[in-house]
Amino acid sequence: MAKALESLLRALQGLPGVGAKTASRMAFHLLQHDRDGALELARALTRGVAELRHCTRCYTFTDADLCPTCTDPARDDTLLCVVETPADQAALERTGVYKGRYFVLMGKLGPLAALGPQENGVLRLLERLQGAQGDAVRELVLATSFTAEGEATAHLISQALKGRDIKVTRLARGVPLGSELEYVDLGTIAHALADRR
Amino acid sequence: MAKALESLLRALQGLPGVGAKTASRMAFHLLQHDRDGALELARALTRGVAELRHCTRCYTFTDADLCPTCTDPARDDTLLCVVETPADQAALERTGVYKGRYFVLMGKLGPLAALGPQENGVLRLLERLQGAQGDAVRELVLATSFTAEGEATAHLISQALKGRDIKVTRLARGVPLGSELEYVDLGTIAHALADRR
Repeated sequence: MAKALESLLRALQGLPGVGAKTASRMAFHLLQHDRDGALELARALTRGVAELRHCTRCYTFTDADLCPTCTDPARDDTLLCVVETPADQAALERTGVYKGRYFVLMGKLGPLAALGPQENGVLRLLERLQGAQGDAVRELVLATSFTAEGEATAHLISQALKGRDIKVTRLARGVPLGSELEYVDLGTIAHALADRR
Repeated sequence: MAKALESLLRALQGLPGVGAKTASRMAFHLLQHDRDGALELARALTRGVAELRHCTRCYTFTDADLCPTCTDPARDDTLLCVVETPADQAALERTGVYKGRYFVLMGKLGPLAALGPQENGVLRLLERLQGAQGDAVRELVLATSFTAEGEATAHLISQALKGRDIKVTRLARGVPLGSELEYVDLGTIAHALADRR
């Protein structure tokens, strides 16, 4: 096999969830049908690595020191929403309902993750809440995933903030819009019953 | 969202099988954990597009006019194996059993694909068999997939070669090694019975 093809297949397998078969499907598709797309992807990767870094305040990916959400003067400084990833943040933004600030953890606690100082979004969040910017925060909205890890992360954060004058809330659990009760899992129905209003 | 992130997400969605969610998982993984891998992928893509083209004889991807298999003097010119993709070719090569030449169709007939002259591997194959290189071929091994489309492609090729002095064979159908009969589909067992030896 040509060297250039070998290194392309190997590099594609560096993508999460891409094994040997998917990599060869991708490589042949790009080479056979979409060479412009391949070059565009190469440019986007190079540009992304060069330009994108973490916002110094909320830690999302941005191309400046501070992201547009952190610099927006119309945002409510008393509300801080904690999410796991920029994708989660984007999902919340699409609702158009939330007007506060964000903090992006960039991951969640793994089942065995120790509270080490590196790569640890929870520690960065607590640091931020110590600082001058943290003083304005009156409510922390925990919007981590409703999985075991996301719940553990939310629990850890709310524990760490005990005694501080910050109201800690969690996104409501309940039946998703458009679903028939028959097909909703029991845990969700139980939560929806307990939190009925 | 930062422009550079937007274009990275869009470019990743150009990969086959990659939607919005997978693209954001890939982008965040690369930016957060594997920036070197992102740059390597960018280089491999650029290099692949620049260097890789089709072998003028067998149509596989190569970085020269002719691929190593076509220029190898130890290969048997009387045997020509027809495969759909370079990945299929690589799978056959890994067995170490086949010593003939290859022809890579680069795709198969879609259910409604007309026999147009463009992008059509079958026409290219027939052309090759007309030429001087085709004169040496005594046996054509059809190794297209055992799917409806692969079978149709094989059928079309064998029909087109009727009357020519070329023996057309097909990879044997039968029970895969390591399988228990109980779990093998009926069609495969029927073929294995009919072709018993």
